[in-house]
Amino acid sequence: MKQNSIYTESVALHKKLKGKLEIYSKVKIKNSHDLSLVYTPGVAEVSKLIAADHRRAFDLTIKRNTVAIVSDGSAVLGLGNIGPYGAIPVMEGKAVLFKEQADIDAFPICVATQNAYEIINVVKNIAPVFAGINLEDISAPRCFEIEDALQDIGIPVMHDDQHGTAIVLLAALINAARLAGKKLQDLIVTVNGAGAAGTAIVNLLRCVGQDKRICQPVKDIFVCDSKGLLSLDRDDIVDHPHKIFLASISNHKRRNGTLRDAIAGSDVFIGVSKGNLLTGDMIQTMNQKPIIFAMANPVPEIMPDEAIKAGAFIVGTGRSDFPNQVNNVLAFPGIFRGAIDAHAKRITNSMKIGAAFALASCVEKPTRENILPSALDKSVPKKIAARVAEIYRRDS
Amino acid sequence: MKQNSIYTESVALHKKLKGKLEIYSKVKIKNSHDLSLVYTPGVAEVSKLIAADHRRAFDLTIKRNTVAIVSDGSAVLGLGNIGPYGAIPVMEGKAVLFKEQADIDAFPICVATQNAYEIINVVKNIAPVFAGINLEDISAPRCFEIEDALQDIGIPVMHDDQHGTAIVLLAALINAARLAGKKLQDLIVTVNGAGAAGTAIVNLLRCVGQDKRICQPVKDIFVCDSKGLLSLDRDDIVDHPHKIFLASISNHKRRNGTLRDAIAGSDVFIGVSKGNLLTGDMIQTMNQKPIIFAMANPVPEIMPDEAIKAGAFIVGTGRSDFPNQVNNVLAFPGIFRGAIDAHAKRITNSMKIGAAFALASCVEKPTRENILPSALDKSVPKKIAARVAEIYRRDS
Repeated sequence: MKQNSIYTESVALHKKLKGKLEIYSKVKIKNSHDLSLVYTPGVAEVSKLIAADHRRAFDLTIKRNTVAIVSDGSAVLGLGNIGPYGAIPVMEGKAVLFKEQADIDAFPICVATQNAYEIINVVKNIAPVFAGINLEDISAPRCFEIEDALQDIGIPVMHDDQHGTAIVLLAALINAARLAGKKLQDLIVTVNGAGAAGTAIVNLLRCVGQDKRICQPVKDIFVCDSKGLLSLDRDDIVDHPHKIFLASISNHKRRNGTLRDAIAGSDVFIGVSKGNLLTGDMIQTMNQKPIIFAMANPVPEIMPDEAIKAGAFIVGTGRSDFPNQVNNVLAFPGIFRGAIDAHAKRITNSMKIGAAFALASCVEKPTRENILPSALDKSVPKKIAARVAEIYRRDS
Repeated sequence: MKQNSIYTESVALHKKLKGKLEIYSKVKIKNSHDLSLVYTPGVAEVSKLIAADHRRAFDLTIKRNTVAIVSDGSAVLGLGNIGPYGAIPVMEGKAVLFKEQADIDAFPICVATQNAYEIINVVKNIAPVFAGINLEDISAPRCFEIEDALQDIGIPVMHDDQHGTAIVLLAALINAARLAGKKLQDLIVTVNGAGAAGTAIVNLLRCVGQDKRICQPVKDIFVCDSKGLLSLDRDDIVDHPHKIFLASISNHKRRNGTLRDAIAGSDVFIGVSKGNLLTGDMIQTMNQKPIIFAMANPVPEIMPDEAIKAGAFIVGTGRSDFPNQVNNVLAFPGIFRGAIDAHAKRITNSMKIGAAFALASCVEKPTRENILPSALDKSVPKKIAARVAEIYRRDS
């Protein structure tokens, strides 16, 4: 009933607003002199300066502070493939968050194609006016190909469903491990879900040392898809390049089996797949002080109270009505703010790991029910941005 | 010197503003309840409504009022092919005018390709979030192909350098002909320039009757390109489809020759090409009360005082420092406002002609030095919009 009333209220708000964003003009045109400065003939001189040196667009145009939120609507929230029109209000909401949390001007680009090649071309071609591209709600495995192909277009391109989630999860894990008295490098982690978020999480856990010159992975990772534990022995992954990649960097001893087999002896469970997959007795096979992130939405892999009853030391979910919400909003505004401020050409793993440590440090005294700051704490994006920009400048 | 000081002042203004536009969020997020309405979970219901019926995007999202200004930077102002980066401040300026004149939220999309096929694909693919597409500063002949290919994407697509100019020119001609005591249908018109604007002007003059059910063209049109008068006898136009088209609908008696030959006996000269091409003695070969539109920028085909001295009855230019400025700003805000308000799928010739008559009627008592209203008169776009929307609704 509460959910239903939020739906009704949200539809009413959208009907009233008729668009959550507005293009605001910073200049008023009161007379022909104003017109000659803002537009022709005066603007010709500005155009010439930029044509001669494209970097001047950062000083003289909206490029300085503008991010495109690009989605094909193929994996929107829990709704699945609802297409680009249905995606518009979500991308507008994301733009509102960019503005509110990090003063970034973000504009929704919802594309009428789900062909990876065409999406890549659209993004490449609209890049001149933007300082960064936030890919959003694009389904796996196309999201990997699209993001990879766009890493050299000169501005940062990040698929938030992958890396936003991975960064917040890593921040949560940093504080959870500290509370459990465990070092990151000693952790054995089971990840359930080999899609967009799962892949990015594993990728980040490969190299979680705070110093980028010492790449210190967690001890081992076990990744499960719907068919069970990923290993290089699995012959059904031959046509799934990202699963081959995942199998190559995880499961060092090439174990086989189900999620139940994988999780025995793990310190951490990370669920980014479907609800109701994890049981209390599976948690009881984990190492002492088990850390559980059950992030399936809206129904988690296991309900927090059940996990705690089974001995979980810390439980996080994707929901705002339980403690320790792993919420992308904590990461993307600060990451893009920092990348844009540094005129970064891409967002590197070092920047993502730095962002996670900065985010973790935003909680002064973490407790088992409070390992992450509030999603709307405006000091968080500032701290993340400063760290991200610092790392980019250090490394470039 | 005055021009130089405008350039300096404009650059200083752009440095200060660092972008003339801002994405403004109409909602503030103060707490998690706000977040659940603007973003997830509440927004999911809005997404579902739109996914089921795309037209709902007009009620519930920014699509209602948002136009893309798309340019490849191939023909920017008088600067020529300066590319997409140099085009950004011009497109921002245009967006400011959309907002100030017609309360339309316009966003600049400057594309990193000058391949017509790729531009068509970009525009098709970004269409979902927009109510209309303003193509801008794209060079001929690619602009024709691009605009044509986009007429069926479900939202209006108009290349302003073609039709904006043609509509304002037609409005000016309506009032000029009235003052000269001539009927539109009796006019013989010479157009110098067979590019974007020239082609659109000829196209509109083919059918200038106020009632779309009576297509009443001007008596005859002579079109000159740099090689002279266009006629179906010219064998050098075989590979220029738009010139074959122009030759087919003009020069009924298949005359040949130069601009000087063409203009003899004309009532109207329309220059949309290069400066200093027209002389006083050429004007003296025209019919009585010659009407001169010398719109080349920054140097007109003939200076107004020289034209008047040679007997011109009315002179218009593209410049703000002479009387009768033919300025696109008079047309595009109202046309898009009307098309968007009517949820038009395209902008038809009838709508363009209606816009021209509406614009002409905005000058209560036209005089030889005042055939068009002021570029910043905000009642103009309102009148044009009402007429454009009315015609679309009548015809659809």
